[in-house]
Amino acid sequence: MNFSKRTTVEQIEEGTQLSPKFNQDGLIPCVTSASESGEVLMLGYMNNEALVKTIETGEAHYWSRSRKMLWHKGANSGLVQHVVEMRIDDDQDAIWLRVSVAGNGASCHVGYKSCFYRQVLVGEATKVSAHNPRNALIFTENTKTFDPMDVYGDVQNPTQL
Amino acid sequence: MNFSKRTTVEQIEEGTQLSPKFNQDGLIPCVTSASESGEVLMLGYMNNEALVKTIETGEAHYWSRSRKMLWHKGANSGLVQHVVEMRIDDDQDAIWLRVSVAGNGASCHVGYKSCFYRQVLVGEATKVSAHNPRNALIFTENTKTFDPMDVYGDVQNPTQL
Repeated sequence: MNFSKRTTVEQIEEGTQLSPKFNQDGLIPCVTSASESGEVLMLGYMNNEALVKTIETGEAHYWSRSRKMLWHKGANSGLVQHVVEMRIDDDQDAIWLRVSVAGNGASCHVGYKSCFYRQVLVGEATKVSAHNPRNALIFTENTKTFDPMDVYGDVQNPTQL
Repeated sequence: MNFSKRTTVEQIEEGTQLSPKFNQDGLIPCVTSASESGEVLMLGYMNNEALVKTIETGEAHYWSRSRKMLWHKGANSGLVQHVVEMRIDDDQDAIWLRVSVAGNGASCHVGYKSCFYRQVLVGEATKVSAHNPRNALIFTENTKTFDPMDVYGDVQNPTQL
């Protein structure tokens, strides 16, 4: 699949041609949310091939930056993300996927449903005396949906320092 | 505000210390969604200062990559984003803001409510005979919420080719 060339701001913002912009690493960021709850599940990255595969199959594909390979989400864990809707933003340098997740509905390698399982207090909430900004995260999911060891075994953890 | 150093995967994924990872450009991507509808409004980027300002004030601040400056969203347009909840992801290299937007609720410089105002057909929907993948975007918002000329005047459009 060949995407249209980016020629004018008007074409990119107001047109109906798909003209994605990949960054200096050849990637476009992708926000993935649960289609029913609206909860953001993860922020991933797609290269050209992953974007094309996602469009062609209707299942989310990403570029794994840690493993440096095409990543068909759920191919190992069974937690495939079925795309309910794909959108692209104004300057076409970001993708939004609304998905329904197979199996137990989890999308996070740590075992939680969403990768965003911790809250950061902001504004007035930070002004209480006990607040320590260096120790400020609050878990929003109390229990893991699955045990990563069961699903991934000894596959290397993708988190990098 | 000093963030905790990133020392171990367990600390980053399972701990309560805020240890954000900024990329090679000193930025962390930020998904911003409407707190009530769950609609994703924009994908922005924060540098250290923007993240600290957002935490301290409870209003979304970003780093404008086009203008290369700290960007208090809504400072010019009045469309301030009040943070209802901030979250951070497993490896702490992405932020999610749930916001309520002042004024008419719009967040997109083109005049739409969400920057993601166009849909991309995927999967089975692409297999109909009339589908042309190079001309494939479908508008999801029929009318603009505001006229960008009224709000921004002749400020340079941030979209880059």
